[in-house]
Amino acid sequence: MNSHGSAVDPPQSCHRSSVDPPWIRYGSAGDPTNTSTEDLELAPLGDSDVHVKMLAAPINPADINMIQGTYALLPELPAVGGNEGVGRVLGVGRRVTSVTPGDWVLPADAGLGTWRTEAVFPEETLLRVPRDVPVLCAATLGVNPCTAYRMLADFESLRPGDSVIQNAANSGVGQAVIQIARAAGIRTINVVRDRPDLPKLVERLVSLGADHVITEEMLRKPDMKDIFKSIPKPRLALNCVGGKSATEMLRHLPRGTMVTYGGMAKQPVTVPVSAFIFKDVKLRGFWMTQWKKDQMHSKLAVSLCELVRKGQLGTPACTEVPLEDYRAALEASMKPFTSSKQILIL
Amino acid sequence: MNSHGSAVDPPQSCHRSSVDPPWIRYGSAGDPTNTSTEDLELAPLGDSDVHVKMLAAPINPADINMIQGTYALLPELPAVGGNEGVGRVLGVGRRVTSVTPGDWVLPADAGLGTWRTEAVFPEETLLRVPRDVPVLCAATLGVNPCTAYRMLADFESLRPGDSVIQNAANSGVGQAVIQIARAAGIRTINVVRDRPDLPKLVERLVSLGADHVITEEMLRKPDMKDIFKSIPKPRLALNCVGGKSATEMLRHLPRGTMVTYGGMAKQPVTVPVSAFIFKDVKLRGFWMTQWKKDQMHSKLAVSLCELVRKGQLGTPACTEVPLEDYRAALEASMKPFTSSKQILIL
Repeated sequence: MNSHGSAVDPPQSCHRSSVDPPWIRYGSAGDPTNTSTEDLELAPLGDSDVHVKMLAAPINPADINMIQGTYALLPELPAVGGNEGVGRVLGVGRRVTSVTPGDWVLPADAGLGTWRTEAVFPEETLLRVPRDVPVLCAATLGVNPCTAYRMLADFESLRPGDSVIQNAANSGVGQAVIQIARAAGIRTINVVRDRPDLPKLVERLVSLGADHVITEEMLRKPDMKDIFKSIPKPRLALNCVGGKSATEMLRHLPRGTMVTYGGMAKQPVTVPVSAFIFKDVKLRGFWMTQWKKDQMHSKLAVSLCELVRKGQLGTPACTEVPLEDYRAALEASMKPFTSSKQILIL
Repeated sequence: MNSHGSAVDPPQSCHRSSVDPPWIRYGSAGDPTNTSTEDLELAPLGDSDVHVKMLAAPINPADINMIQGTYALLPELPAVGGNEGVGRVLGVGRRVTSVTPGDWVLPADAGLGTWRTEAVFPEETLLRVPRDVPVLCAATLGVNPCTAYRMLADFESLRPGDSVIQNAANSGVGQAVIQIARAAGIRTINVVRDRPDLPKLVERLVSLGADHVITEEMLRKPDMKDIFKSIPKPRLALNCVGGKSATEMLRHLPRGTMVTYGGMAKQPVTVPVSAFIFKDVKLRGFWMTQWKKDQMHSKLAVSLCELVRKGQLGTPACTEVPLEDYRAALEASMKPFTSSKQILIL
């Protein structure tokens, strides 16, 4: 993460804003609401740089953990918050070939610092995406739908008619899993925490394409077997919770893989020895940040935009927040049972 | 598992013993010492059958669990005990092509019932092995060294200089892991339970080729880092224990795979979510019985005999027991801290 804030000369080939653009800065690890917005002098536009007007950037749990200093990837401080978002190219250095002014771009990797109105980024840190998808959809495409797509594709060879079980089905990734699986003819069993407005949540997930929505409590009950009269036992389990929830999901996996990508319960994953030996269950993990480091992923973004265009992948439930109200948005994003993603409009 | 006890006509092409050969029979699940030896009429030698004189058969923990009725694979009762052993071919049916009289054979699969002096087996249930290895070595080749070989070969691409960590390092599989790894130039970190005769055990495992032998307690101490000054961090962990032991081994695995093949602690495997996500640790299981069902393994037995001939894989520490003393042998095999395998001489 680089602030690009130590400009020496004004860039030659770059449209400058009339004022220095603001960014959400944090100088030490701690309470996210202790961050501040600051005006930042734009870096000069080097030959391989791209001048970007950020359009929208969500607040994800990983962003919060990075500010709190508890994430596995921590930036040098002071840093700009935010790892995801979409921007429009305003200008490019003379050696830049992958984007032209007007293009939309996403961060190619975590750690770019997206919570700012404008920035000059090195070309290789950006990824061009089609600009015929809704801006809020593009802003949230780089992490959650990518994670969902890769987890469905990379661990088991699923075919139409196969099924997948997931907990935290209401999360950004969970909703993307439902839609991407549906588009591929894969059935989903979706586990959520019980809550006062459960019927509403069930209705929403079913409208996205969920085949079954059950609570953590129902997952432990013998009636679970009724579900498997109409749907095959899952070959893939996606675990964002850990603890009991993960152990219970595993009970319904006769073989296949459980992929852990989050630990909302703050408890480890516990697996009976017999599941490994006699059921040949495989346990893996997934971290989009590592995947992006290891792979090209521009094709993935294009595939996801294709799903968006076909109406198979929608914009997640979100709340648009102007930059000046970012503190309230950070607070809202840390509340339990948050169903709506906070997206900063920049 | 088949008793082959309901003979109708005496076989034509088969050397018969002067008396019906005895076998160790159990009619219901329960205490292994409640089994009995019985004389059993030999089945007739069909065209595709092989008449075998069993030479030696070990008592393995899985045999005990099968008799107790707690194993994942249970035979029809009454059944003959024992899943491993070596026999000499006495005669063959006229359509048999894979073995001739004088050959040594192992069971191709679990469930054959090896605790008997003679039997008529279908050809496809047997596997020819070279007969220039010690009989006690051949008798114990089919399960433990095969398991060790496959676990070292099938999960991570290990190269000379790489290291492996394993618990229950004193088990039959553990000792085979030490020797097979040594022969391949792979270093081993071997975890054992503390015990009164620890120095003697350490000496024995080191003489087999162990690079480091540590207790479960030492595994949890900060000095573990000293080991990694002279040896790289392991890329493969072999877990026969579960519980704390497995969790502690995982802490020393920076990435790579932990393979669970036993659960001596009778406690599940517990894994922090972060190990999956940020370290990309993979958890798998291994069950030789399933592997044998899925794969051809005569080549594997030949490879292992090659290691035996080169002096790189020895006969495990064992106690030879005449068949009539089998009850004492069963009792001895169920005692804790058993270092010596009981082998029935038939």
